[in-house]
Amino acid sequence: MKSADRGTAEGILFTDQYQLTMAQLYFRMGIHEQQAQFDHFFRKYPDYGAHQAGYCVNAGLAWLLDWLGEARFGQQDLAFLRSIQGRNGKPIFAGDFLAWLADNGHFGAISMRAIPEGRVVHANVPLTMVTGPLAMVQILESPLLNYLNYQTLIATKAARVHAAARGSQVIEFGMRRAHERGANAGVRAALIGGADFSSSVGISQVLGIPPKGTHAHSMIQAFMALGGSELDAFRAYAELYPDDCLLLVDTVNTLESGVPNAIRVFEELRRQGHEPLGIRLDSGDLAYLAIQSAKMLNRAGFAGVRIVLSNQLDEMVIWQIIRQIEEESARAGLDPDELVQRLIYGVGTRLITSSGASALDGVFKLVALRRGSDWLPAIKISESPAKTLNPGHKQVWRLYDRRGKAAADYLCLDDENPLAEQFLELRHPTDHTKFQTLGPDTILRIEPLLADIIRDGRQLYEPLGIKELRRQRQSDEEFLDAGVRRLINPHIYHVSLSRKLWELKQRLISQAKKKGKEEQHGGTV
Amino acid sequence: MKSADRGTAEGILFTDQYQLTMAQLYFRMGIHEQQAQFDHFFRKYPDYGAHQAGYCVNAGLAWLLDWLGEARFGQQDLAFLRSIQGRNGKPIFAGDFLAWLADNGHFGAISMRAIPEGRVVHANVPLTMVTGPLAMVQILESPLLNYLNYQTLIATKAARVHAAARGSQVIEFGMRRAHERGANAGVRAALIGGADFSSSVGISQVLGIPPKGTHAHSMIQAFMALGGSELDAFRAYAELYPDDCLLLVDTVNTLESGVPNAIRVFEELRRQGHEPLGIRLDSGDLAYLAIQSAKMLNRAGFAGVRIVLSNQLDEMVIWQIIRQIEEESARAGLDPDELVQRLIYGVGTRLITSSGASALDGVFKLVALRRGSDWLPAIKISESPAKTLNPGHKQVWRLYDRRGKAAADYLCLDDENPLAEQFLELRHPTDHTKFQTLGPDTILRIEPLLADIIRDGRQLYEPLGIKELRRQRQSDEEFLDAGVRRLINPHIYHVSLSRKLWELKQRLISQAKKKGKEEQHGGTV
Repeated sequence: MKSADRGTAEGILFTDQYQLTMAQLYFRMGIHEQQAQFDHFFRKYPDYGAHQAGYCVNAGLAWLLDWLGEARFGQQDLAFLRSIQGRNGKPIFAGDFLAWLADNGHFGAISMRAIPEGRVVHANVPLTMVTGPLAMVQILESPLLNYLNYQTLIATKAARVHAAARGSQVIEFGMRRAHERGANAGVRAALIGGADFSSSVGISQVLGIPPKGTHAHSMIQAFMALGGSELDAFRAYAELYPDDCLLLVDTVNTLESGVPNAIRVFEELRRQGHEPLGIRLDSGDLAYLAIQSAKMLNRAGFAGVRIVLSNQLDEMVIWQIIRQIEEESARAGLDPDELVQRLIYGVGTRLITSSGASALDGVFKLVALRRGSDWLPAIKISESPAKTLNPGHKQVWRLYDRRGKAAADYLCLDDENPLAEQFLELRHPTDHTKFQTLGPDTILRIEPLLADIIRDGRQLYEPLGIKELRRQRQSDEEFLDAGVRRLINPHIYHVSLSRKLWELKQRLISQAKKKGKEEQHGGTV
Repeated sequence: MKSADRGTAEGILFTDQYQLTMAQLYFRMGIHEQQAQFDHFFRKYPDYGAHQAGYCVNAGLAWLLDWLGEARFGQQDLAFLRSIQGRNGKPIFAGDFLAWLADNGHFGAISMRAIPEGRVVHANVPLTMVTGPLAMVQILESPLLNYLNYQTLIATKAARVHAAARGSQVIEFGMRRAHERGANAGVRAALIGGADFSSSVGISQVLGIPPKGTHAHSMIQAFMALGGSELDAFRAYAELYPDDCLLLVDTVNTLESGVPNAIRVFEELRRQGHEPLGIRLDSGDLAYLAIQSAKMLNRAGFAGVRIVLSNQLDEMVIWQIIRQIEEESARAGLDPDELVQRLIYGVGTRLITSSGASALDGVFKLVALRRGSDWLPAIKISESPAKTLNPGHKQVWRLYDRRGKAAADYLCLDDENPLAEQFLELRHPTDHTKFQTLGPDTILRIEPLLADIIRDGRQLYEPLGIKELRRQRQSDEEFLDAGVRRLINPHIYHVSLSRKLWELKQRLISQAKKKGKEEQHGGTV
């Protein structure tokens, strides 16, 4: 895209057309400035096919706030809207509406509460709640989802890869296969979710995490094309980067050429007083090659050098590689734990595109509208009960059990105070037969999750750096049950409604159903 | 991301760290300005799991050229590189290299040949060939792949959705689930590949295709929360957009409320002299609901209004919906063809994320280096034969058979001229037992595919508009065999090497193997 077009494509018009046609309708009805509340939540954890997430890691808020703070309808945007014609050849958008947008078409009048970034979050829990003039909050739907869905998806995937890697370093490698400019958001989310570093230079600089990278096959090929050899290429690399020497050993033949040449260069380095960093394996049977390479390296006195694995890795492949190493190391005379601990994983495509589940199904739904001093709850009755909204103004509390583990996320109405209750009744969101009552002997601690992010256009939330976000995530993960953290078929974490919220929901459903019936009969009279 | 950080994250540092460490090594060896050729190609067609692509649609070049034209190392970029430290605490990048980048760190000295956007392309065929100073072409690898992989992936998916829709309109709906800012590239690719319109406003404006959109559930909910009804909401919408009235009918109950209310409003519209546009179904059994809705609409005299389907659509779901309509329409007294023809598909998540195959495996590999007036072919011998590169300077020709159908893409050395040959020997890229000879009685037409895009930094290629790119795609698709276009388990299109190219490859492989062996023995003496 030409730079000159960026403003149009990435500014306030980075939204869907129906948001604008609805906004105009609200304007025409005189309800465009009515205060509305929309909730953002996702319905299902990512399902990668053969494995599934039992929790997500919240991410994307800081960048959404950056966009929000700058987006507003400028003259160029309005001129474009003025030019859009309907089937009758007349403009879709009228002058008075566009004039309103010129003055009010920004997010300076919204308020937002949200679960902060880096926190572990769950399906059907409101993660972000926005209140403000109906028209503008409606327009915000598409960009908000765009910013939050993707980063949460990738932070979640990265947390899984991090878990599979058992504390070994994970380096994000994916920009070449990422969804174009989304690469940068993906890197940020990966770093929050559990990647230690990224190979992407610019975004690493922006985030304050040093980029990582050594060399590719092309370097060896260049030497060979010019009459040199793999060994010459390794030597040149070692000479230039004597203290950061990590050699890619699979250009010609890993075990017959790459590793022996690397060892030779490592010996030369050591004689010059430098300690080599490692080798990288990028093809073939990575577990087998890691074992064989480790054996050769150990024999040559390089038990300390790292072995970087890359090539189509994800949490399942890493898990299987470790498994295979555990089974086969002893036969090769190696300590499997030592070998596993010296591994580093370069994870590209499957992390940055969340392979197997390439989207998070986050939605942003109207749940309440203000009339005078009252908030009127809104509901959409879906033909599938699980899709029926949880109405109104809410707070989310995390309940911790006697072991200190997170036991449930508890949604209640904003005017309820679970801290003041002796007993909490937890209702299943849709199944009326499922509920339980928890008392002081079962609940150790109750924590509110939603924080004030924006109040009347003023940002109250100070975004955290990557390292703080990681600490937050790690701390939340430690509070999760092992079953919820399981990479395959995880235990379902409880998300429950308070009795009051549940009853409000039931009342609204029956009112809406009754109303629907009346109208239908009205229609046939 | 803050606007102030965009330059850093999206400019010349939108690349991988190892490109820079390699570039410095080339600089240190004095080969950084040596002319190099890198080929871009993908190895495998997208495999969505239960279905597979038999061809791809090339896209992304124009936006890559926009980036290329502007990217260069500025003072801020260089200051960052200067600050990166190795393990020894010393800077990784030396002053003389950074000084060279300050003067030469741009793409003003490269040349590029490529298969133009919108063309049907195949696995293992060079799509883009870049020549220029080794250091800069190396740095280009990551951004080039980032720009081309994603758009080609999505244009390909869109072509499949378009094919499944059998000429019915497809509207791209996916920005909320797209990979953040990649959404805009995805929309462009979808429009090239076969989507007729997009709901995304800004990017539609940039591309000159009007955005499409009507209303969401939230509009009905807002009316209901304020004491009104679905019918009130429909009426308000119809009044504001009388000639573009398309109503979403599944907020309360599709067949009992939504469709009857829509019909009532359509009748009112018609009395006022307006023709309604359609209804949209966004949940439930879309085929069943389309049939039932069509029945009700027809009975009420609205056989002309369109039925828009949305909700997790992709090529397979569309195919199955059509199949179900074909089977069940007659029982409902409907002509299935008429019904299928009035459908419009809103396709979101699964198109813009290429669900099932969320990345294209495009690579950018060094294939030749110039020394003096000679080009020295480079090769990487992979442990898997299919990954071994096709070396050197090449041209790609498309061979059309007597039926006028594309029969094979034929890779030969640049100095070969297949137009002057009576007979062409087509060699399988890896299997030496597979070859065939085609003569004038089998080949009707031969067409060169690679065009000059950039020569010595000067752009020769004038990017085409979306409509021209679509025409190009459509024309190429018509030349494809039905088997190659099949959505599931397609016939493999032939990609062959000329005898000369094949022999060069074999020679290089055995040289490299021999050399690897020699070195290894050298190492053990």
